[in-house]
Amino acid sequence: MIRVGINGYGNLGRGAELALSQLEDMECVVVFTRRDPGKVTTLGAPVAHVDEMAEYVGKLDVVLNCGGSATDLRTQGPQVAKLFNTVDSFDTHAKIPEHFEALDAAAEEAGTLALISAGWDPGLFSIMRVLGEAVLPSGSTTTFWGPGVSQGHSDAVRRVEGVADARQYTVPVEETVQAVKNGENVELSPRTMHERVCYVVADEGADLERIEREIVEMPNYFADYDTAVNFVSAEELAREHGGIPHGGQVIRAGQTDDGIDSAITYQLQLGSNPEFTGSVLVAAGRAVARMAARGQTGAVTLFDVTLTDLSPKSAAQLRKNYL
Amino acid sequence: MIRVGINGYGNLGRGAELALSQLEDMECVVVFTRRDPGKVTTLGAPVAHVDEMAEYVGKLDVVLNCGGSATDLRTQGPQVAKLFNTVDSFDTHAKIPEHFEALDAAAEEAGTLALISAGWDPGLFSIMRVLGEAVLPSGSTTTFWGPGVSQGHSDAVRRVEGVADARQYTVPVEETVQAVKNGENVELSPRTMHERVCYVVADEGADLERIEREIVEMPNYFADYDTAVNFVSAEELAREHGGIPHGGQVIRAGQTDDGIDSAITYQLQLGSNPEFTGSVLVAAGRAVARMAARGQTGAVTLFDVTLTDLSPKSAAQLRKNYL
Repeated sequence: MIRVGINGYGNLGRGAELALSQLEDMECVVVFTRRDPGKVTTLGAPVAHVDEMAEYVGKLDVVLNCGGSATDLRTQGPQVAKLFNTVDSFDTHAKIPEHFEALDAAAEEAGTLALISAGWDPGLFSIMRVLGEAVLPSGSTTTFWGPGVSQGHSDAVRRVEGVADARQYTVPVEETVQAVKNGENVELSPRTMHERVCYVVADEGADLERIEREIVEMPNYFADYDTAVNFVSAEELAREHGGIPHGGQVIRAGQTDDGIDSAITYQLQLGSNPEFTGSVLVAAGRAVARMAARGQTGAVTLFDVTLTDLSPKSAAQLRKNYL
Repeated sequence: MIRVGINGYGNLGRGAELALSQLEDMECVVVFTRRDPGKVTTLGAPVAHVDEMAEYVGKLDVVLNCGGSATDLRTQGPQVAKLFNTVDSFDTHAKIPEHFEALDAAAEEAGTLALISAGWDPGLFSIMRVLGEAVLPSGSTTTFWGPGVSQGHSDAVRRVEGVADARQYTVPVEETVQAVKNGENVELSPRTMHERVCYVVADEGADLERIEREIVEMPNYFADYDTAVNFVSAEELAREHGGIPHGGQVIRAGQTDDGIDSAITYQLQLGSNPEFTGSVLVAAGRAVARMAARGQTGAVTLFDVTLTDLSPKSAAQLRKNYL
């Protein structure tokens, strides 16, 4: 049984606990929180304060760092890696090499193993970008996101005056997706790749035309996209748009010979972004626990992990039933 | 530079040479053939007789066994593994554990590394079956094949009296594919999953109704499927159906929580089945050469290979640009 600690209990930590509850080879031993442990209600796992973490050394095979922000993960990462093998979902692209170096130094010194940037993007989509290029060297790789909820864009809409609540979906432009799969030389710009669809609850008496104009013209967030604004009631928003779905697809399109086209598409359609991300962190945790048990130390990514280590099945079972 | 030998020069061997010609970190040093080397025309690689293989020890980092049949690969496998690190595309499902054991014994004794069952199925699809289950443990995995040419079924049609030539396409039933992605409880039988579409050139004066009846009623090959028979001219067959496209998709559909559905789809659309398979063998060859250089011996599968070993890029490049 692989003994797992979850560090941080927001949507992602809860998703990881949910994933662990479905497994027979891994168990959630403890959830660490910065809040008052008595006030955190888990799905069943015991709760401890982060300050008690050191008391769990020797009792956990891996800790999943489920901090809510990139800042959390950057500060927590090296600290936790001094005590435990770790997994995180660090996704601030430009800072990945720096984060890797910090974790590598801390983990090497402590003799632990730290896997960074697990999840679906970065994570599974990263795997597909590398795999696609390895098996189809002449071609190009394109990533589309959605349909799914973007928290950052939803927050941006909520900041518009007169908006009581809002939800923003990022939606890939199907025409462009098809053109990319067909290997057509299509323009790839924000507007040709993704549409933005907003569901907005306005304050009573608010000027709806102004709200719509302010949204669609908002720089960075919406101005470079075709944006649809739909005004709905608070009840409809809660009823129809209460989930946190997401997904996307990575397409590798290329040629094995002149005029011989191939396309590789990896698509995710996720009912709950944090639940699925939590589930990927758990699978990565399994691999980290096994690799660490074989003596591996330092920082790694999913690029350094084999399928055999990710799977609960034995190598012989995998060969017999999955090849 | 990773030095590669190709053993066997049919469609697959040619596909592997074509893939190698697009790479900067690998080169095709020699093609081995059972035929008269003077009569084999490659894309540029030197040709030697298989009996001369031992002379190449020390000159090749990996040999890609591109034998045309499962029988070839079973007999060649252990012999070649005594001399070189190897990769094959062994795909007789029931015999995989046995083939693995034979290669493992031969390779361990010789101190070489042998990777079996590379390609797309087995191969990339196998990876997706394991990965899908690891990251979405509660669910089911379904594989659809096509649209693509099935050589076995094309041959079966050609054996019908009065058929001069034929090409058979396996086509997934789109309605069933969608139902599986949606997590619906749909019946999965030969008929609900795949259709068979035949293009047939009949001998002059042949009884077309009888030919069609014999095809659609043929046990094992067609009787369990909805089969369409289209009679065409030899010219049309050559013009419209001369390629060897194939592909398919692996779908993992499941739930991260009660009522929260997720679907993971990996789809291949391949202009040339043997060219793409050859390209996968080459990527596997890169990994084998690197793993063997680190001292690994015995038999492995793609389940035991990291993305870092499959890719021509360095680990730091991958972290910086692909995560």
